[in-house]
Amino acid sequence: MSPNKLVPQDFTPLTIGIVGFGNFGQFLSKAFAAQGHRVVGQSRGDYYEVAAAIGCEYVQSADKLMDCEPHIVVFCTSIMSLDTVLSRFPLKRLANKLVADVLSVKLYPHDLLLKCLPSSTDIVCTHPMFGPESGEHSWKGLPFVYDVVRIDPLRKQICDAFIDIWRSEGCTMVQMECAQHDKIAASTQFITHTTGRMLAQLNLQTTPINTKGYESLLAVVDTTCKDSFDLYYGLFKYNPNARQELDKLENALGDIRNMLERTERNEAQTRNLSRSKGVEKPCISEEILRTLRLRVSPRI
Amino acid sequence: MSPNKLVPQDFTPLTIGIVGFGNFGQFLSKAFAAQGHRVVGQSRGDYYEVAAAIGCEYVQSADKLMDCEPHIVVFCTSIMSLDTVLSRFPLKRLANKLVADVLSVKLYPHDLLLKCLPSSTDIVCTHPMFGPESGEHSWKGLPFVYDVVRIDPLRKQICDAFIDIWRSEGCTMVQMECAQHDKIAASTQFITHTTGRMLAQLNLQTTPINTKGYESLLAVVDTTCKDSFDLYYGLFKYNPNARQELDKLENALGDIRNMLERTERNEAQTRNLSRSKGVEKPCISEEILRTLRLRVSPRI
Repeated sequence: MSPNKLVPQDFTPLTIGIVGFGNFGQFLSKAFAAQGHRVVGQSRGDYYEVAAAIGCEYVQSADKLMDCEPHIVVFCTSIMSLDTVLSRFPLKRLANKLVADVLSVKLYPHDLLLKCLPSSTDIVCTHPMFGPESGEHSWKGLPFVYDVVRIDPLRKQICDAFIDIWRSEGCTMVQMECAQHDKIAASTQFITHTTGRMLAQLNLQTTPINTKGYESLLAVVDTTCKDSFDLYYGLFKYNPNARQELDKLENALGDIRNMLERTERNEAQTRNLSRSKGVEKPCISEEILRTLRLRVSPRI
Repeated sequence: MSPNKLVPQDFTPLTIGIVGFGNFGQFLSKAFAAQGHRVVGQSRGDYYEVAAAIGCEYVQSADKLMDCEPHIVVFCTSIMSLDTVLSRFPLKRLANKLVADVLSVKLYPHDLLLKCLPSSTDIVCTHPMFGPESGEHSWKGLPFVYDVVRIDPLRKQICDAFIDIWRSEGCTMVQMECAQHDKIAASTQFITHTTGRMLAQLNLQTTPINTKGYESLLAVVDTTCKDSFDLYYGLFKYNPNARQELDKLENALGDIRNMLERTERNEAQTRNLSRSKGVEKPCISEEILRTLRLRVSPRI
């Protein structure tokens, strides 16, 4: 068990199924197992050794996973593949179990799980807002967003125990409805990713004259581009607010250009007015600017 | 004199004229005076008390300033007003003196000073890449860019002493030609300001689920918007590379949108192909997305 963790006194090990055993699934499994839970990973590849190395079991079929009688099944697929994975899953075997997802969008899995799962399945939608990089050494203070969508009061304890896993790792616990999450995430996380990817297109380099603000931007580019384009596309397509945020960002950049060009036009008008009135006007600056622009403009 | 400063052994106090005694002029004057130099501020307002409080003298006319026989005259005006201030200055009295500027663009003052000043005037173009906020407590490690444009070997010592002021404050000294400065500053400082102002248009707020990247962006917005729009406009208009960088930024954001929409079209085509071939296709996801988008789209 990891050191410095707050383990509840009435700790009972859970059996946790992890569907989708990629980077993120493994990252979570390792922490769950370190807390003393039985963790069984499942996907189509051969991850037996990887699982064993982090204290987990591994199976290749969903039926074998369900044979382990997990208390909780956590879907750790990508946003894009959740529907396919669910469509191939023996969903009836999830009756009277707790199902969780950990996707970066929340309304979509909320609706999809409600639509696909048996009505007796408990559902908790979560978004751990960190990953193998930012949470490598500790999850302390990192936000864990969760929404208990549907729960049978008789099985409330299991859901509480699952949520306690994150609390005892020191996450900042944020209980938030899925709709609210997607609204906020579009104007924060999606905007950050978009800004990072936009700046990445410029191929920004470190220079001898970086300002602090520029260094912050370089850091955002670096973090953003470590995530896959697929994740970014997922944030765009599956967060219903994202498209509107992208529009806003384009409009904002357009507004800035308009403000600059409007100021320029006003300045020119004032200058012409002064000239026509014969008011004193030192205007070598315009001449110098014209020359400068010619010097730097690309040769045609 | 400030503590922990490296004062050259052969220290001789200079008389430094500061033309333009606004925030930035006062900020520099205070540090120059603290190093033991005689500093005389000049502008049109009544800054006698402000100057006295930071160990400086003050005069309201350029002629009175020149009567003080400064070794160096530092123009601390805004980018936009430099030409007007120069046009009203008794330029002949700058013969055989050192003139410096401290603007955030460099080619423009470089050319303007060369054009306006007597041919016997020494010129050093500088850009202290910090201000009253970032350099409030110390200038240590903050970049000071300078380009010795023209100097009479007999007066080299004065220029060296002026540059030593910054070195002894601990600035990171960057000797760089004006053209190179503007090229780099457009793709770093101007891009940072533009990104900050673009994001400011979105009225971003702190939320319970800020990611680290998002917090970096909030910090960039905060820093950027503390500077005046006039400074930003100056960076745009008077750095001949800025316009091109703004175009690049707009294109980059357009590219990101194109990438997202192209991926979306390809996905739809693949889906239609699978459907027409009768391949297994779980497609409740598209239906769910359509419903979600209707839920969040603004009522018309």
